Amino acid sequence: MSTVLHETTTAAASTGSTRKRLREGAFGHARALACRECGHEVELGPSYACPECFGPLEVAYDFPTVTREEIAAGPANIWRYKALLPVPSDIEQSPNTEPGFTRLLQAHNLGRELGIDTLWVKDDSTNPTNSFKDRVVACALSAARELDAKVFACPSTGNLANAVAAAGARAGMKTVVFIPSNLEKPKQVNSAVYTDHLVAVDGNYDDVNKLASEIAGEEEGWAFVNVNVRPFYAEGSKTLGYEIAEQLGWRLPDQVVIPVASGSQLTKVDKAFRELVALGLVEDKPYKVFGAQATGCSPVSVAYKAGTDAIRPVKPDTIAKSLAIGNPADGIYVLDICRRSGGAVEDISDDEVRDGILLLARTEGIFTETAGGTTVGVLKKLVETGQLDPTLETVVINTGMGLKTLDAVADRVGPAATIAPSYDAFVASGVL
Amino acid sequence: MSTVLHETTTAAASTGSTRKRLREGAFGHARALACRECGHEVELGPSYACPECFGPLEVAYDFPTVTREEIAAGPANIWRYKALLPVPSDIEQSPNTEPGFTRLLQAHNLGRELGIDTLWVKDDSTNPTNSFKDRVVACALSAARELDAKVFACPSTGNLANAVAAAGARAGMKTVVFIPSNLEKPKQVNSAVYTDHLVAVDGNYDDVNKLASEIAGEEEGWAFVNVNVRPFYAEGSKTLGYEIAEQLGWRLPDQVVIPVASGSQLTKVDKAFRELVALGLVEDKPYKVFGAQATGCSPVSVAYKAGTDAIRPVKPDTIAKSLAIGNPADGIYVLDICRRSGGAVEDISDDEVRDGILLLARTEGIFTETAGGTTVGVLKKLVETGQLDPTLETVVINTGMGLKTLDAVADRVGPAATIAPSYDAFVASGVL
Ligand SMILES: Cc1ncc(COP(=O)(O)O)c(C=O)c1O
Ligand SMILES: Cc1ncc(COP(=O)(O)O)c(C=O)c1O
Ligand SMILES: [Zn+2]
Ligand SMILES: [Zn+2]
Repeated sequence: MSTVLHETTTAAASTGSTRKRLREGAFGHARALACRECGHEVELGPSYACPECFGPLEVAYDFPTVTREEIAAGPANIWRYKALLPVPSDIEQSPNTEPGFTRLLQAHNLGRELGIDTLWVKDDSTNPTNSFKDRVVACALSAARELDAKVFACPSTGNLANAVAAAGARAGMKTVVFIPSNLEKPKQVNSAVYTDHLVAVDGNYDDVNKLASEIAGEEEGWAFVNVNVRPFYAEGSKTLGYEIAEQLGWRLPDQVVIPVASGSQLTKVDKAFRELVALGLVEDKPYKVFGAQATGCSPVSVAYKAGTDAIRPVKPDTIAKSLAIGNPADGIYVLDICRRSGGAVEDISDDEVRDGILLLARTEGIFTETAGGTTVGVLKKLVETGQLDPTLETVVINTGMGLKTLDAVADRVGPAATIAPSYDAFVASGVL
Repeated sequence: MSTVLHETTTAAASTGSTRKRLREGAFGHARALACRECGHEVELGPSYACPECFGPLEVAYDFPTVTREEIAAGPANIWRYKALLPVPSDIEQSPNTEPGFTRLLQAHNLGRELGIDTLWVKDDSTNPTNSFKDRVVACALSAARELDAKVFACPSTGNLANAVAAAGARAGMKTVVFIPSNLEKPKQVNSAVYTDHLVAVDGNYDDVNKLASEIAGEEEGWAFVNVNVRPFYAEGSKTLGYEIAEQLGWRLPDQVVIPVASGSQLTKVDKAFRELVALGLVEDKPYKVFGAQATGCSPVSVAYKAGTDAIRPVKPDTIAKSLAIGNPADGIYVLDICRRSGGAVEDISDDEVRDGILLLARTEGIFTETAGGTTVGVLKKLVETGQLDPTLETVVINTGMGLKTLDAVADRVGPAATIAPSYDAFVASGVL
């Protein structure tokens, strides 16, 4: 499937100007878009489904030689890996949010609490709009720019809308972002500060997503980051994998635990690890990939446990709204990766999500949103059920930030006391 | 003034153990605490006021030779500058939040909007707890650890409480944080997730601060980051200045605009610039420092405009609560630096603060809190009133994050429309 983004540029010819051609190196070392199912290749452009089999298209590369030193000499953001992304070599010159190279924290306290010997938290809550989405959006923005898109848009469970609206503002592009109308207020405001075109849709994410595909088919010149430029967008998540390996001292962890909504991020972290091995940047070794869902929206976990490949779409009902995708586009690949690697997909209740948020805050000083609560809670369950080996080095990815889902824990914590401003009042309060 | 933190360790002697001595290099290359007023030096420890004249104590160093290359080879956080901070050389080994090395973004859009030729935003909203306070707290945590403190504490206008509670959790220290009881809910929850000892005080920040001094004098083994270990704490803000210079390619900007509450940050950015010159890491050149306040709490700006050195304490009444310190400890030094450098101190109304938040979001995709709205709004006013030269290279510091003060703009922005999930409904909505 290819959208009318291309035809926009063709249409320009009929109005007198010559058709805008892609500039040399517009997508870096990317060679083509290749079908994940049948391998068929199409030229780089706003296409996302294979013309032969309707499988999803993914960016294929002719990578140059890349050294650790070249990467280390790059900026402290995702562009240090630009040679491995579908972006031009002068990407730093175009205004963008400069996301990534976030903290990898050794989590002694959380590890002790869960009985895991060596545990790391990759903390993506400190990205420009406080979720990992800034990574994918930065890559989508580059594609939108190179394809001469007029509108930068997305359907979103919230974080993506924040990231698209912010990046669009900074890049000076018109943005339109679509969200479910029942979305948390902080995430709504956090998009509306950046754009006049926040559109609330009465429906769940899957309805919003369908609407976006419809608009992408009807309107000209729209780049929907996770629809018609999705292949470019998705590559941004590879940088999470690159950073984990580099920050571990250029080696892969034994186990990694990743939240799953559409499943894109999980598949791309796996792709990143494989690329690093292929490029000789890390040694080859087995690693296990684990997926985390909330029970109220766990179509991938359900299929995993049933031992089937058939993912049955669900109507989400969970506080983990950023993970509330009932019909996950990449769910099938998540199943494949987790099974093949010896990992698993697991899910937990909303109360366990809340517990996960507080557990991470109390042990490591990281305030995560419901998505992170899900991931930490699933990590706990994986250890308890013997699915994750606590003697192996483990990385858990925190993808979001607690202030965006304040209500999830606002009733569970608060001041220990409210006192008059005197030492006597403090002593009498019994706080200590 | 020296607090009982030291006596705690002395007391240990009387219970049979030997007095805990500072380990070699506990404070890095720091030599002593020196009085800002009379120059008198006292030994490194939990002291904050000169025994001779009651002036504030500041860390004095015997700096080694430090090269740009050594710094660049360090981690992507404030510890790359550890040789210039009062911390041990193995600081990275002790669990901390690893703050700093945040984005310096060239702000073409905001610059164009304000008529400034070359403008940069130093964006400290992406720190671990989303304000510049993580920097100062990381240095205070190191001092508290080296001094063997039992409780890690602070009075706070909100952000400091977030940073202290998070850092304490990660370090495994007991934390007690004190805030005004009327503080924004997000900032309250954002502390309470990390600690069981959030104490709300009926009073304004200055009341809370007084209470903290009282407790520091009465209780043993408490490290109040901004009271009895304040000299160490304050040094953390120097890293903002170091980073700005390094990220500009090892040179100083012509003008810098900084928010002022206690005034500590502004004085330390200036100190950092002077140190870099003294160390030969940047070329010497004139630069102007500007301070930003909200009119509802503008004691320093009022004194600046009156041409006096006498800062009259005020009762704060502004939405910029993180800047609501009516009796600023370092106000006098702010006046001195801004006057001496050819800068200024300016203040704006709460409505202009809100405008500043939206202006930064719309132009650069950064969602700041009221403190950042104040700084951006003051920048605008400084240009309009001719106090800041728009042809000179300017850096504006964003110190905080919008989700913490959501209510400031929640009524001013929102969805453009709420629609049914269909293309027709979208077209009919007139959003475009
Ligand atoms: C915070 C957060 N974490 C994880 C995810 C999952 O991403 P994916 O759709 O790539 O599985 C999302 C998606 O919206 C998210 O917002
Ligand atoms: C976001 C923010 N910016 C600026 C300041 C001002 O800091 P200082 O007290 O060092 O002047 C504060 C202080 O609380 C703050 O929270
Ligand atoms: Zn195919
Ligand atoms: Zn003195």
